[in-house]
Amino acid sequence: MRFTDKFMQSNIPFLCTPIIGKTKEELIDEIASVSLKNPDIIEWRVDYFQDIHDFEKVVEVARTLKEVSNDIPLLLTLRSVAEGGNPTSLSTMKVVELLVHICKTSFIDLIDFEINNPDEEIRQIKKAAIEHDKFLILSYHDYSKTPANEELIEIFKRAQTLGADVAKIAVMPNDHGDVLRLLDVTNQAKEVLQIPVATMSLNSLGAISRMFGWVFGSRLIYTVGANSSAPGQIPIEEIQRLIKTISTYQK
Amino acid sequence: MRFTDKFMQSNIPFLCTPIIGKTKEELIDEIASVSLKNPDIIEWRVDYFQDIHDFEKVVEVARTLKEVSNDIPLLLTLRSVAEGGNPTSLSTMKVVELLVHICKTSFIDLIDFEINNPDEEIRQIKKAAIEHDKFLILSYHDYSKTPANEELIEIFKRAQTLGADVAKIAVMPNDHGDVLRLLDVTNQAKEVLQIPVATMSLNSLGAISRMFGWVFGSRLIYTVGANSSAPGQIPIEEIQRLIKTISTYQK
Repeated sequence: MRFTDKFMQSNIPFLCTPIIGKTKEELIDEIASVSLKNPDIIEWRVDYFQDIHDFEKVVEVARTLKEVSNDIPLLLTLRSVAEGGNPTSLSTMKVVELLVHICKTSFIDLIDFEINNPDEEIRQIKKAAIEHDKFLILSYHDYSKTPANEELIEIFKRAQTLGADVAKIAVMPNDHGDVLRLLDVTNQAKEVLQIPVATMSLNSLGAISRMFGWVFGSRLIYTVGANSSAPGQIPIEEIQRLIKTISTYQK
Repeated sequence: MRFTDKFMQSNIPFLCTPIIGKTKEELIDEIASVSLKNPDIIEWRVDYFQDIHDFEKVVEVARTLKEVSNDIPLLLTLRSVAEGGNPTSLSTMKVVELLVHICKTSFIDLIDFEINNPDEEIRQIKKAAIEHDKFLILSYHDYSKTPANEELIEIFKRAQTLGADVAKIAVMPNDHGDVLRLLDVTNQAKEVLQIPVATMSLNSLGAISRMFGWVFGSRLIYTVGANSSAPGQIPIEEIQRLIKTISTYQK
């Protein structure tokens, strides 16, 4: 079964584990340890890669990661600084160019792109994703607050309109009420959207959303395999145990 | 430290495990197995006791349970049929009489009484609880729905006004949104009430509230030691593991 079909039909969330090495060697070590832990997706956070400006090196590393990934689908993410990423020397135009370039290879299965980018850039990415059969995650991050429910729903709808296969929202809670609001929006998304969503409330205050948010409809959990890439991520082994326990008792 | 002080100061929820034996012998067997699992409270669901009409037998069993309870505080609950209990031959007046009678002994530490009872009856129970230093849980159950948020908050306030040491609400969800609403009300209670609350969304649909409702302020979890007394209860061992895991990552 294709990844997309498996993802769409699964009753339990898919677990995504980032790798954040700076060099090819670090990445190979990381993916070797991470792939033993059975994630559903491995996310290469290419914003941490020191040779990111050299597209051929990026492709070369992607090829190697694919070879050693044990058939686990690879997600390429270039997170901007504004949305929690590592600083890089690439202009926004170059970012689009890199993502389109990597879409043309067979080494990457999924692409993440930020929904706050201009529509025209998102359309270019979407076009490349369709042409080369890549799964597109359109993502939104707010590291300072949890926007109003209506605003979050609008972001989901925009992601759907722009052709996302999954709409992702990661936002900072300032109190427990914010965590519950995000779960509520996640739950509502089932009614108002045709595409699946992935949501997470950040930091240790929001960590509960990474444990139980899937019950309310969040379809992807970003977990720690070897290294964390966002505040509040939980080790994949813990999440695997939690999913098993929760599935036993929760409908 | 007294039970009340420990309960008020604890950062993690207290685990309450029911025993539902029909005879003294069954109850002794049950409490022996349950007390090994380290609950914070053992709840004797006296509505299941076949000699409930004989107050002296009730007192005699309470004495024996206290002797073998391993110093775990005992909660006496006589749940009415309307709120999920086992049918008994006692009139409401007799129920009050029994609870007042048992308050006078030293074998029981906590008493549960339903908030839907007439104010005058609640006042009699409260008076006996104060005179004999018992902790009073005023409880509300709806096995058909989750009432509106405002209504639930009013129930909490009524419990506080009537002198509850803890206000308990157990309600049936009809969808995931109901489960989230109950968690939201639980979270709000911290702001509007001076007393602690215990909340649970029933059935397997609501089971998630028993796993992580405490993060939002529910202070008592009813868990299965030997037997379940309400739909959706989870074994105490699982809840103990979950609390440990959640505490590690959640603030």
